[in-house]
Amino acid sequence: MIQSILKHASVRKYKTTPIPESVLNEIIEAGVRASNTGNMQLYSIIVTKSAEIKEQLAPAHFNQPMIKNAPVVLTLCADVNRFTKWCNQRNADAGFFNSESLISAIIDTCLVAQNICIAAESHGLGICYLGTTTYNPQQIIDALQLPKGVFPVTTVTMGYPDESPALSERLPLNAVVHAEKYNDYTSDAIDKAYNEIENNPANQKFITENNKQNLAQVFAEIRYSKSNNEFFSEQLMEAIKSQGLL
Amino acid sequence: MIQSILKHASVRKYKTTPIPESVLNEIIEAGVRASNTGNMQLYSIIVTKSAEIKEQLAPAHFNQPMIKNAPVVLTLCADVNRFTKWCNQRNADAGFFNSESLISAIIDTCLVAQNICIAAESHGLGICYLGTTTYNPQQIIDALQLPKGVFPVTTVTMGYPDESPALSERLPLNAVVHAEKYNDYTSDAIDKAYNEIENNPANQKFITENNKQNLAQVFAEIRYSKSNNEFFSEQLMEAIKSQGLL
Repeated sequence: MIQSILKHASVRKYKTTPIPESVLNEIIEAGVRASNTGNMQLYSIIVTKSAEIKEQLAPAHFNQPMIKNAPVVLTLCADVNRFTKWCNQRNADAGFFNSESLISAIIDTCLVAQNICIAAESHGLGICYLGTTTYNPQQIIDALQLPKGVFPVTTVTMGYPDESPALSERLPLNAVVHAEKYNDYTSDAIDKAYNEIENNPANQKFITENNKQNLAQVFAEIRYSKSNNEFFSEQLMEAIKSQGLL
Repeated sequence: MIQSILKHASVRKYKTTPIPESVLNEIIEAGVRASNTGNMQLYSIIVTKSAEIKEQLAPAHFNQPMIKNAPVVLTLCADVNRFTKWCNQRNADAGFFNSESLISAIIDTCLVAQNICIAAESHGLGICYLGTTTYNPQQIIDALQLPKGVFPVTTVTMGYPDESPALSERLPLNAVVHAEKYNDYTSDAIDKAYNEIENNPANQKFITENNKQNLAQVFAEIRYSKSNNEFFSEQLMEAIKSQGLL
């Protein structure tokens, strides 16, 4: 099991081979076995295969080709709608349209997502998470007709791999692990943590291509710029409010 | 792999046997192999073993016995502090103290957490998630000395199992899965979704014990009441703001 997790790399090119229904069901069954808050299962999994709906989802994901090319697109949503409907139908005074329930539901949704991805990989499938889900949530809400109380957290594209991507780099383990309490980073600890990544020739190339002085500038000023992050933050908060969750 | 995921049940009683350092390292290594946004690794993992610090964490988790009894307590945190420090040190204009970065970091933190749990279980360990982490975040921030930019998302207790809990119930798969788009629930669909859970004799007992008319009332009025959810929402938002993340 651990060996398979250690070999994970995101797959962005898929064969056209469809995923058998029985395999997909087993994968999603593995998903819902994840721990969740109070066993309320405050999530929903939307399985999109139709070309037409994938077409509607694509702009929200900046038209990344995986959306249209993957046989299956899973949109994993935090969902207090179903539970609230149940409570209302049973004359129970429900209060789940708030930030505590939203954050708990987001956490539970992610645990389901990761179980699904590991189960999929153990079936020889490849997966890719689309972080764009939280950039343009309103477009996804519209495309998938999400009612109030439902919020898209992440998207997973899935299919049989048509590429074998290399393992991506990571910070040394001791740069992300803290013993007992948080040990805040000294300037020297930061240098050590990022040293290997900064000296990776592929990343050096990345700096030159982007006309920057170093890798941190590529991340902070090009790929994930402050102005973009702030723009997407506004869109995100508006969409959360509009779904009644704040 | 899938078989192990399908057998997951939270373990709350642990043997005193310590977890070998090599095993714990392999488990955390499996954690950081999870997909993450832009490979920025906006998370930190705090590994607490000392009785003294567990004692400080315990009240935040309503003194659930797992905190003190588990040989290892992992507090998984969204963390934009490390990345921002790196950017600042490299004269890069970083903008990660915002809700978009926080939500992305929360998602990434959860994928790490679930990888860790699956890897732990494949080593014969038992785990339990503590949802209390988002109830009393400020107490955890204080106990673990989390600087601005770091926020506790979830806590996992871990150890060799001293109990064999039964698999917990789940809604039927078709109650949480939607084909193509979200298919909102009719009154009949809600009845069908909750039918099995409502007829479970253990849950019937739960209703009687709590002097309620049905299971939904136990959840919405006792276990996860509106007033509690709203109280914890306020604490949560205050702590997020105080960490500079909103």
